[in-house]
Amino acid sequence: MNETLDITDRTRLRRSHERGHFDRATINQILDAQPMCSVGYVIDGRPFVTPTLQWREGNHVYWHGSSASRALRNARDAQVCLSVAILDGFVLARSGMHHSVNSRSVTLFGSAFKIEDPAEKLEKLGRFVDGLFPGRYETLRSDHAQDLKATMVLGMEISEGSAKIRTGGPKDEEEDYDLPIWAGVIPVHTTVGDPIPDPRNIDGVPLPEHVQSFQL
Amino acid sequence: MNETLDITDRTRLRRSHERGHFDRATINQILDAQPMCSVGYVIDGRPFVTPTLQWREGNHVYWHGSSASRALRNARDAQVCLSVAILDGFVLARSGMHHSVNSRSVTLFGSAFKIEDPAEKLEKLGRFVDGLFPGRYETLRSDHAQDLKATMVLGMEISEGSAKIRTGGPKDEEEDYDLPIWAGVIPVHTTVGDPIPDPRNIDGVPLPEHVQSFQL
Repeated sequence: MNETLDITDRTRLRRSHERGHFDRATINQILDAQPMCSVGYVIDGRPFVTPTLQWREGNHVYWHGSSASRALRNARDAQVCLSVAILDGFVLARSGMHHSVNSRSVTLFGSAFKIEDPAEKLEKLGRFVDGLFPGRYETLRSDHAQDLKATMVLGMEISEGSAKIRTGGPKDEEEDYDLPIWAGVIPVHTTVGDPIPDPRNIDGVPLPEHVQSFQL
Repeated sequence: MNETLDITDRTRLRRSHERGHFDRATINQILDAQPMCSVGYVIDGRPFVTPTLQWREGNHVYWHGSSASRALRNARDAQVCLSVAILDGFVLARSGMHHSVNSRSVTLFGSAFKIEDPAEKLEKLGRFVDGLFPGRYETLRSDHAQDLKATMVLGMEISEGSAKIRTGGPKDEEEDYDLPIWAGVIPVHTTVGDPIPDPRNIDGVPLPEHVQSFQL
């Protein structure tokens, strides 16, 4: 396996090259840290972006939805751009120009394919649930055949893409460091609150370990 | 002003119609709650998605970057799709099928225009800083003319788009409520940590109110 993705015309960074990363380990780490993603696709030459959840298995990324979904029907067998972006902080500098954000993002390009085989689709969906909540899938009511039919799973190979990371404090012009302006970073965190049980849970049903220990 | 956006072929919801909102108040509230956005655009018939920050003034949304940026040069005077998505929680149901996320999202469609007038551009950038950190812009070192020239600001009218909101607990099949499966919601919050001062801040520079009171 090639541990570093080839740089292409779509992924070459034009500026801030030090922020670009093409190694799979870095790309995978960001994909695994945040399921929310944006999938870009084209209909009649016009851009569409749909927020959805992605999950990764090896060198592939997957997402799913209703079989009737416009976002999925138009991404299938077509070029897509999948983007994951995590905001880590606001960077306050001494000039407006040097304000920035600390962030981690991944952009992937490729052709999306549909998982046709029902057994494979079921397996992918099970891995999606278990990827977030380990062991949960086997505790659930089994999927109905018609539910599975109503669900489309798309996949894309992770072969063309890049990660972009900014960390640390502001980088001001040398002559601006003498100014009496507060500069620094306001960190941003994503946190998980206490689980809210469904009022219709049957009495005594235990809170599963995969919920207790869930973190983002 | 039309307080509700017309539904178009690009914004009509095909499913879960109860989650769709077309009133400006709801759309604006989501845009104002989260500056991070994804801008979709098309180059040579292929989709691109770039994460960036957006800010709103009235019925327009703006974003900016380097004048040399591919994302901006290709969005200018072209069709774009701007998406803001906020993850509010994971919804755990009794079947895989009914797992979901609570979220708020906005999708806007339109043609992006470039702010040409330098004074207007400066004003927009100042409002961007002050929108996040009220009063900060006038405390900063003034923008250099060449910095302003190196920065492109794009805008788009908020005229075609929609919001999508999911809240609340799982919605299971009636016969599944008897199953001994924990169902509920794991809330997700975005929080702000303690400000980290730049080690090169001059001695005694006070922490501004706009940093102390900053929230997302």
